[in-house]
Amino acid sequence: MSKKYIDLDTLKYILYDVHNIEDLLIRERFQDHDVEALDLFLDSIKEFSDRELYPFFKEMDDTPAHYQDGTVIVHEQVDVMMKKGGELGIISASFDYDDGGLQIPFMAHQAAAYILDAANNHLPGYAGLTQGAAELIIEFGTKELNKAYVPKMLSGTWGGTMCLTEPQAGSSLSDIVTKATPTENGFYKLSGQKIFISGGDHQYAENIVHLVLARIEGAPQGTKGISLFVVPKNRPKEDGTLEYNDVMTVADFQKMGQRGYCTTHLVFGDSDDCRGWLVGEENKGLAQMFLMMNAARIAVGRGAAAIAMAAYRTSLQYANERPQGRKLTSTGKKNPTEKQSLIIEHPDVRRMLLLQKSIVEGSLSLVLLASKYHDIIHSSTDKDEKEKYDLLLEMIIPIVKTFPSEAGSLSVNTGLQVLGGYGFCTDFKLQQYYRDIRISALYEGTTGIQSQDLLGRKVSLQNGKALELLASEIMHTVHLASNHSDLKPYADQLENKLQLSQKILQKLIPFAMKGNYERYLSDANLFMEFMSVLVLSWLWLEMAVNSKETLESGILKYEEDFYESKIHTMKFYYKYELPKTISLAESLMSDEVLTIKQDKEYII
Amino acid sequence: MSKKYIDLDTLKYILYDVHNIEDLLIRERFQDHDVEALDLFLDSIKEFSDRELYPFFKEMDDTPAHYQDGTVIVHEQVDVMMKKGGELGIISASFDYDDGGLQIPFMAHQAAAYILDAANNHLPGYAGLTQGAAELIIEFGTKELNKAYVPKMLSGTWGGTMCLTEPQAGSSLSDIVTKATPTENGFYKLSGQKIFISGGDHQYAENIVHLVLARIEGAPQGTKGISLFVVPKNRPKEDGTLEYNDVMTVADFQKMGQRGYCTTHLVFGDSDDCRGWLVGEENKGLAQMFLMMNAARIAVGRGAAAIAMAAYRTSLQYANERPQGRKLTSTGKKNPTEKQSLIIEHPDVRRMLLLQKSIVEGSLSLVLLASKYHDIIHSSTDKDEKEKYDLLLEMIIPIVKTFPSEAGSLSVNTGLQVLGGYGFCTDFKLQQYYRDIRISALYEGTTGIQSQDLLGRKVSLQNGKALELLASEIMHTVHLASNHSDLKPYADQLENKLQLSQKILQKLIPFAMKGNYERYLSDANLFMEFMSVLVLSWLWLEMAVNSKETLESGILKYEEDFYESKIHTMKFYYKYELPKTISLAESLMSDEVLTIKQDKEYII
Repeated sequence: MSKKYIDLDTLKYILYDVHNIEDLLIRERFQDHDVEALDLFLDSIKEFSDRELYPFFKEMDDTPAHYQDGTVIVHEQVDVMMKKGGELGIISASFDYDDGGLQIPFMAHQAAAYILDAANNHLPGYAGLTQGAAELIIEFGTKELNKAYVPKMLSGTWGGTMCLTEPQAGSSLSDIVTKATPTENGFYKLSGQKIFISGGDHQYAENIVHLVLARIEGAPQGTKGISLFVVPKNRPKEDGTLEYNDVMTVADFQKMGQRGYCTTHLVFGDSDDCRGWLVGEENKGLAQMFLMMNAARIAVGRGAAAIAMAAYRTSLQYANERPQGRKLTSTGKKNPTEKQSLIIEHPDVRRMLLLQKSIVEGSLSLVLLASKYHDIIHSSTDKDEKEKYDLLLEMIIPIVKTFPSEAGSLSVNTGLQVLGGYGFCTDFKLQQYYRDIRISALYEGTTGIQSQDLLGRKVSLQNGKALELLASEIMHTVHLASNHSDLKPYADQLENKLQLSQKILQKLIPFAMKGNYERYLSDANLFMEFMSVLVLSWLWLEMAVNSKETLESGILKYEEDFYESKIHTMKFYYKYELPKTISLAESLMSDEVLTIKQDKEYII
Repeated sequence: MSKKYIDLDTLKYILYDVHNIEDLLIRERFQDHDVEALDLFLDSIKEFSDRELYPFFKEMDDTPAHYQDGTVIVHEQVDVMMKKGGELGIISASFDYDDGGLQIPFMAHQAAAYILDAANNHLPGYAGLTQGAAELIIEFGTKELNKAYVPKMLSGTWGGTMCLTEPQAGSSLSDIVTKATPTENGFYKLSGQKIFISGGDHQYAENIVHLVLARIEGAPQGTKGISLFVVPKNRPKEDGTLEYNDVMTVADFQKMGQRGYCTTHLVFGDSDDCRGWLVGEENKGLAQMFLMMNAARIAVGRGAAAIAMAAYRTSLQYANERPQGRKLTSTGKKNPTEKQSLIIEHPDVRRMLLLQKSIVEGSLSLVLLASKYHDIIHSSTDKDEKEKYDLLLEMIIPIVKTFPSEAGSLSVNTGLQVLGGYGFCTDFKLQQYYRDIRISALYEGTTGIQSQDLLGRKVSLQNGKALELLASEIMHTVHLASNHSDLKPYADQLENKLQLSQKILQKLIPFAMKGNYERYLSDANLFMEFMSVLVLSWLWLEMAVNSKETLESGILKYEEDFYESKIHTMKFYYKYELPKTISLAESLMSDEVLTIKQDKEYII
């Protein structure tokens, strides 16, 4: 199979071998599935992506989604994605049989979505948000709501969205003002505006089902007064026909990247005829929305990881085909009479490619690990096990969202550099990946928000238990690696850096204890970087142990080079990336306070 | 004056006070100028930029330069830039009186160009390349060539270019194949192709004068057989009219950014009627071109520094106007009944803005310092002085090109993040700066090429004398700072990191001594990063010393806060950026070799 935009072997290796999806398949929930069946599913998604997604990647950038006469005009592949993708199970695959799903592991579903993202990141969001909206209705809505909306959503006939952001509030959800007024007919009347609504409207959707955060009149201020509503663009009537529900599309934001994925501005209730139906309890809307937020954040990390993968494959192919320059001779000169080398032979190009490979495959491992935790939580019958993986997932989720987004962006930047001047030209895909991936550090909570979450909430979760659990997972890998003399030096480094993370927290936590939260969190972003590199180093060591043991076993699914390349990339990550923890620790433990506002303003 | 895209106070402070341009004005070459006159010149450029450049910044992105019927169609401001800019002296200001210039310091000329770049980076390149091409003709060409071309170029009536890159050669100039065949009429016949030629053609230029690298038939292989030619698009005839010179424009590369600045593909001699005139000596073309390359590389660094400045001003303005979220209370919660804060009050936003400020103003200082060295070299009558500054400029030039390009790109990325989702929308300028600046790390020698130059050539220049001179400049500032008790800790850190740079070289140089140049240079890119942070830390300490001493003197041109902000930003750079040298040193001194090609290919 072509590796133009994805290395399917590596995806399957991480899914089946490193993170061993078979651990899940013995559970009751997944007992109907085996690896062969999942393999067929993934191959069908790859085939679909080759045919329906990848060929339209540039075209969707050239002809962006745009507002026209009250709706948004999108590329026709959006229709294909929703309907043919719906048939393939892209929206529903991990749902319960009872809800119309295939009950496959979330982990396999994410692997499938990763293939789609790598092929053309402008399309899978339409399906992904529909899935998320349906999930909210299934989890918290009444049976009537479920019956009225979910089947049409899972088939891709109707789209779905999550409506959080408002113009005046941005990331600060406690400030949303969209209003819901109760009526005597079981529904509420909605009025307000939402911005940055992905997949919010398009010409192919018979209907769009918005899951909207709003305030019921008289609700408490702040996040404790927010409720969740189903607000369809068109409301289904008893006879099955649709009636316009006063949800107006007033604009489509034009963006630097991901231009085929629409980003709408919606106005609810401009004619006082917008009906919404409460989902779950009053004033619990934010908590309910956030129950789905982990999956949404995994999806963002996955999308970024996939774009970085596609960019890596593109720059690797270029480096393997482009002759330029020559090897240095022993005098430090080049011999112009010699044939030019392929650029992949130059150490600096190799460094750039290995940086990409380490970020790309490490991110993939992280995303699939989080997905596995998600599956364990949702298929567990053991309370302690569920709690353990709940905590582990909470702990790593901000990193799962952030690392692939931030490092992925750097990775694509590096890939662009591999192509030299051509990387900047629109005839080459690198510049599109560069623009597309930049959204990832912004949506579903910016890097700043994720970092505050990591240090402000997750580190102290259950008095630090989540962090302890993560440390013990890391130490488990340290012990496994220590059994191999050639991996032991790396295991030692990882253990050392884990201890360093604890020193950092010993320095920072007293600020929180004394109520100085501003100081405690002021460098949360650096702590995020530190923990990201630590976690990635852990995952690379885990991959190296697996490859090492597979090589020793002599039972190989792939070529020897495949496994050796994983060990080599781990070493690369430890030489070039892990040391960054040292300087981050120095900055984090510095006593100088420079970013907290004092009386005078120095930022001028 | 508005600071929408530039902080003119900081530009003038660095130019006049930190790098003290008056040192130059006492020299014979510049004796006609004083600071007041330069100030008027800069203000006129700012006024021109406000009126003719900045308002067209987005429009030039929306309507890119493009190929049409054998020429390139550009925005009409290109014509304004060339002709009105020509009148203002933008092309000629630093040239000799004899050549039609104003003989102002290069340093002031760069400051002016920096203003233009910050206002609209799509335009100044047209003038800058014309200036570079004219300089080559003046420096190496005959009087006849000078007379035939230079006056029209300095007035902006004719454009100029530098033609180096060819499709098969890229960065590897030893492989260029464009051919020059001698004739009996004093000219050569040129044939070949050049790509990525900035400003290569457009509808407003009566003529474009190309400075072309080519091989005279029978010349030695490699870089030793390359000559330089003037090849006009239209050749001037005796009677003053123009005749087409068989220079065909066949395409304009479409790019991710800097879309208003055309990037052409030219074909010379397709009808065997393309005439070129030798400039300087046969086979010395590359050396001649490289004499101008330092100025070209300063210009790239300057452009990147200016784009990063404009992005900083934009994100700073946004942060000062956008309310969102609230300060954390002593319980670590936010109080939703409180008014929202401006985002500039959040520590993480302040960290992002200070990162921008430190990179932006530090880059500007670096660019102006290099320009000052350039002026000293070109106005010196003392051989030792000239040699000293020659070496210093050679030493820092790869950093001057690279740091503003790479860190500037990071800085703009950070500025985009300050705007949140809006940063990604085309209604806001940040995304355009993000796209535009990305070219800087590619042209006039990629970061990889610059890094090889720094470690491979400059470090060993005159047995390390250039490096020693740089170290002694750094130590000079260390000593000045050590006189101030509150600056001394930073001086100590800088000295310590300077010593660390020497340890790194002690580790690396033996590889070169043993002829293992591939190993010596394999991590040149990391060495570049190390040296860049070291040099920037030096320049920030220098700025802090100046600000400190100015505050103590009580004679202030600007508000106190202005000087205090410089000291604060220095501290920021030392807390957050300087520590990166530690991890870079660890990677650089590692014994593991992972990026040199072995038998097996692990990059798959």
